[in-house]
Amino acid sequence: MPRRIAIVGLGLIGGSLGLALKRANLPDLEVAGVARSRGTVQKARRLQAIDIDCADAAEAVSGAQLIVVASPIMTIRGVFAEIAPALAEGAVITDVASTKRDVARWAQEFLPMGVHYVGGHPMAGKETQGIDEAEASLFEGKPWVISPSVTADEASVQTIVGLAQLAGARPVFMDAEEHDSYVAAISHLPLVVSSALFSTAFGSAAWPELAALASSGFRDTTRLASGSPEMAHDIIATNRANLLHWLDRFQDELMRFRDVIGSAEGERVIEAFARGQLERDNYMTNGPPQRDVGEPMERISFADMLLGSKIAGMMRKQEEAIRAAEARVDEKKR
Amino acid sequence: MPRRIAIVGLGLIGGSLGLALKRANLPDLEVAGVARSRGTVQKARRLQAIDIDCADAAEAVSGAQLIVVASPIMTIRGVFAEIAPALAEGAVITDVASTKRDVARWAQEFLPMGVHYVGGHPMAGKETQGIDEAEASLFEGKPWVISPSVTADEASVQTIVGLAQLAGARPVFMDAEEHDSYVAAISHLPLVVSSALFSTAFGSAAWPELAALASSGFRDTTRLASGSPEMAHDIIATNRANLLHWLDRFQDELMRFRDVIGSAEGERVIEAFARGQLERDNYMTNGPPQRDVGEPMERISFADMLLGSKIAGMMRKQEEAIRAAEARVDEKKR
Repeated sequence: MPRRIAIVGLGLIGGSLGLALKRANLPDLEVAGVARSRGTVQKARRLQAIDIDCADAAEAVSGAQLIVVASPIMTIRGVFAEIAPALAEGAVITDVASTKRDVARWAQEFLPMGVHYVGGHPMAGKETQGIDEAEASLFEGKPWVISPSVTADEASVQTIVGLAQLAGARPVFMDAEEHDSYVAAISHLPLVVSSALFSTAFGSAAWPELAALASSGFRDTTRLASGSPEMAHDIIATNRANLLHWLDRFQDELMRFRDVIGSAEGERVIEAFARGQLERDNYMTNGPPQRDVGEPMERISFADMLLGSKIAGMMRKQEEAIRAAEARVDEKKR
Repeated sequence: MPRRIAIVGLGLIGGSLGLALKRANLPDLEVAGVARSRGTVQKARRLQAIDIDCADAAEAVSGAQLIVVASPIMTIRGVFAEIAPALAEGAVITDVASTKRDVARWAQEFLPMGVHYVGGHPMAGKETQGIDEAEASLFEGKPWVISPSVTADEASVQTIVGLAQLAGARPVFMDAEEHDSYVAAISHLPLVVSSALFSTAFGSAAWPELAALASSGFRDTTRLASGSPEMAHDIIATNRANLLHWLDRFQDELMRFRDVIGSAEGERVIEAFARGQLERDNYMTNGPPQRDVGEPMERISFADMLLGSKIAGMMRKQEEAIRAAEARVDEKKR
């Protein structure tokens, strides 16, 4: 019997993940997909992002070892409720939502005992949406946040690590609360700033002249303003406090720049911009600063993980080690 | 005798312009170049961005029909003063500075009667600088602002139109004051916002975690923070009031977004982001909104312009028409 992965929601992320899974060409793997619109599911099938198109989420997840919920944030609660009765014992379930705290709460509330929820967030996207924009390479080199629930077992966590690695992404472990605070700074704040920047120009009576002059700098800094308003809504609804916190910090920083600019002191102006230039160049060239994160993670086969064979072996070894240790303790006691 | 174009300053813009001119392969044209550092001039020569490397600006501009000043804004005043005595009668002189009002004032102050100053600003750039980044295609499809001085004759304006077109750019006529106000909105404001956005994240104690999560959205919105601090300084020094004006408008707009986000009213949130998305998509797909700008400009040959032959013909025709009109008036008077 083939192993099944179900993808619920076939937009940019769900569709791209399907394409990445199919590209990996794993033996005996079937990808079942479902989406709100029949047209999307059929398109996903034509693009070979999925093998089996399903009429509803419950059908897609039945018998699946791994379920990826890739529908908009505010729909996930309903999806969890809908699929809960159809989930197989021991199934691993993940999501790709841009915020993690509320989704983790919904998982706890709706998913049955015996399934393993491991939150996920691939930090990949475009300002455009939908299955037509899907690409197998979307996740390559991108961070993929993994945020396991307390009830998820080691094997289920490794399954999601394997999924991220198979898509070419870089797994990053993070608590759901931490995640939401961090993405507020580097993803949700830029979204709001980008939108406000665009509407400052667009809202001006001089917009036709401004638009005629605008070049790549304006285009890049306002790119995120072209994102889905529904996604912006869902992000804000589930991460409001963090976003407001970072908006305040940004406004303070902007005031600092305003003061320096208004001061007309050349040295201070150069200093204000030089630090950012230096540090951003450093970041772009050398990547994020390294914290002491211990041993690098062993790269494991996703196929093995899904089968559980490797984990089974690892678990056995751990248990043997524990038993040996216990035996030594017992020996001392005697 | 070959015609000469002199480029003073061989950074990203000056170097790219040299490459674009050489690519056009105009007959009997020599490009003379000069830069602060000998190494830059020699590199420009090796890259074939220029034909003749000159030791100083006065040498470069002697005998040149067209002079392009492409050095940093705050150096232009000194360059004008330095080259003034060496300029040939009737020479056309332009620049590529990001602000135009002060440069126009310096031109009026330092350039001799009998030369034609036409301000220019190709809206092309990268966050990286220098001759190593130069590309012949840098200006393709980009707006190139042309801001003639009151004393510049029609032929000199057409020469700069021809230069912009030869580089593949789209000439846009604009008054120096207007230009500075507009670029403050779509170029200088994004620069400050981008820098403040980067330093908000960088200034946080959580920067290592933020950096590990940052993806393309953060990179694009903070790209301008990698620009040259000296260029930021020069822009601010020559366009402070306009920039502060747009900074205030941006802060108002950001407060509007903050209010909407804080309101927790879903409809208002969607509305705030939907308008920008719609209008930005419209702008990206259809380009700037069209104002009634009269007849499209005739595409003329840059080589003809530099020789003056075409303009001479046009002037003759105009004079004939004027004379004929005068003759008719005289006839009526009789």
